[in-house]
Amino acid sequence: METISENRCFGGTQGVYSHASDSTGTDMTFGLFMPAEAEDGPVPVLWFLSGLTCTHENAMTKAGAQMWAAEQGIALVFPDTSPRGAGVPNDEAYDLGQGAGFYVNATQDPWAEHFQMWDYVTEELPRALFDRFALDEARQGITGHSMGGHGALTIAMSFPERFASVSAFAPICNPMESDWGRKQFTAYLGENTALWEAHDATVLMREKGFPGPVLIDTGTADQFGDLLKTEALAEALAARRQHATLRLQPGYDHSYFFISTFMEDHVAFHAEALYGVTE
Amino acid sequence: METISENRCFGGTQGVYSHASDSTGTDMTFGLFMPAEAEDGPVPVLWFLSGLTCTHENAMTKAGAQMWAAEQGIALVFPDTSPRGAGVPNDEAYDLGQGAGFYVNATQDPWAEHFQMWDYVTEELPRALFDRFALDEARQGITGHSMGGHGALTIAMSFPERFASVSAFAPICNPMESDWGRKQFTAYLGENTALWEAHDATVLMREKGFPGPVLIDTGTADQFGDLLKTEALAEALAARRQHATLRLQPGYDHSYFFISTFMEDHVAFHAEALYGVTE
Repeated sequence: METISENRCFGGTQGVYSHASDSTGTDMTFGLFMPAEAEDGPVPVLWFLSGLTCTHENAMTKAGAQMWAAEQGIALVFPDTSPRGAGVPNDEAYDLGQGAGFYVNATQDPWAEHFQMWDYVTEELPRALFDRFALDEARQGITGHSMGGHGALTIAMSFPERFASVSAFAPICNPMESDWGRKQFTAYLGENTALWEAHDATVLMREKGFPGPVLIDTGTADQFGDLLKTEALAEALAARRQHATLRLQPGYDHSYFFISTFMEDHVAFHAEALYGVTE
Repeated sequence: METISENRCFGGTQGVYSHASDSTGTDMTFGLFMPAEAEDGPVPVLWFLSGLTCTHENAMTKAGAQMWAAEQGIALVFPDTSPRGAGVPNDEAYDLGQGAGFYVNATQDPWAEHFQMWDYVTEELPRALFDRFALDEARQGITGHSMGGHGALTIAMSFPERFASVSAFAPICNPMESDWGRKQFTAYLGENTALWEAHDATVLMREKGFPGPVLIDTGTADQFGDLLKTEALAEALAARRQHATLRLQPGYDHSYFFISTFMEDHVAFHAEALYGVTE
């Protein structure tokens, strides 16, 4: 594992690291914020999965999460959103290929060789992190934005024993019924829609839900609101009686200005679950 | 208007009053909490509409609202849920007739003569209150529980210029599709379901929404959860991009223990809207 950079940040360290990935067959880069408390022993960790077009860097520099993570003594992980590089296939559209891995293992050509982001984020990167850093594997939360909110919700519901809490900012909620989903699932997973269901947060909420708390914020002025299908997940959350808070935030759009406004709440939400704090 | 009782309470006064109602053709009783600030001039007012079987008294004694209303300098109004008395028709079921007015104007016999709760709560009682008490008509919020949550939501969306904010505890969300609704609407309004739509929060949310903020709390262990149809309103809120927070509170049921737990949040929510406070 190569250290790209390490910067002091809110009393802790914001690092960027690169490692060779067996899952993707490429080098993968990620950001990791370690709070000061990590000098004394393993700290809880909050995963942040990013959205379309993002690298590991966008949320790390624009979400304003480190202040709150430092306050709570929690680490933050910022994975990349896809494999990248000259030998990796791409598409001229912003929402397919590099920067648009959708947190699935592709089975279709030309994507299958490298686009194994499900395995990378759920298996390989966790192993690499817990082997090398003072992170407490028993205390993990997960969040994300847009495509990364989709990733956070689907991964949390697939590994309920791993995550104490899940949240999302403007998540893609029902990709099987959205142009942010059908196109990518067809390309990566093929046309058998039964294989898509494991990657649809609304379907998973209907079928199994999540044992911990769920927090979702979405702006009422989200310019991609029709693609997110928030209403489908809202219906599923309520029908299941899922422990959940869904907030439709007036006037907010899909940007990092929206994310940073509500980041304090999300970090506090996860901290409460990770430290077992109850009011 | 007759004073039934007045008790000092959190520095203000909890009163109970009775007056002859033209709407219902009966005497009607209501509770009114006035905070200390009312001695200096008109204060904002929060309406609390109660649920099935309740009188004006249940929430007044069990919801724990006065502490928070006193802190915020807000008055609380607790209307009764139906006309009552020897000459008023009733039904042996708990969910029809006395204690079950459903906040509509009945058009069908034998209910039409007295069961005019829509007019009573939206016209006659407000006029009586604003004529007699130091209440600021320009600053009103509305909340309620169960059938009263249905009332709060439907009244707020019908009088959007009147209410700055609306919230509800475990509201009946979609009575047209629930056994808590179809039976009563048939009895009170007749079988033309087109006339029911003005009294269904989900239909109103789909068709017009609310210009202010909406807060809804419902317990995941609500024993009447299937009757509330929270999922229908959740879908409608999200589809409309309504400024709203829907919280599914883990382990809470339909009782006043649930209501009192979250009353502080609801009063603070309305206070923020009524005083124009923004973060």
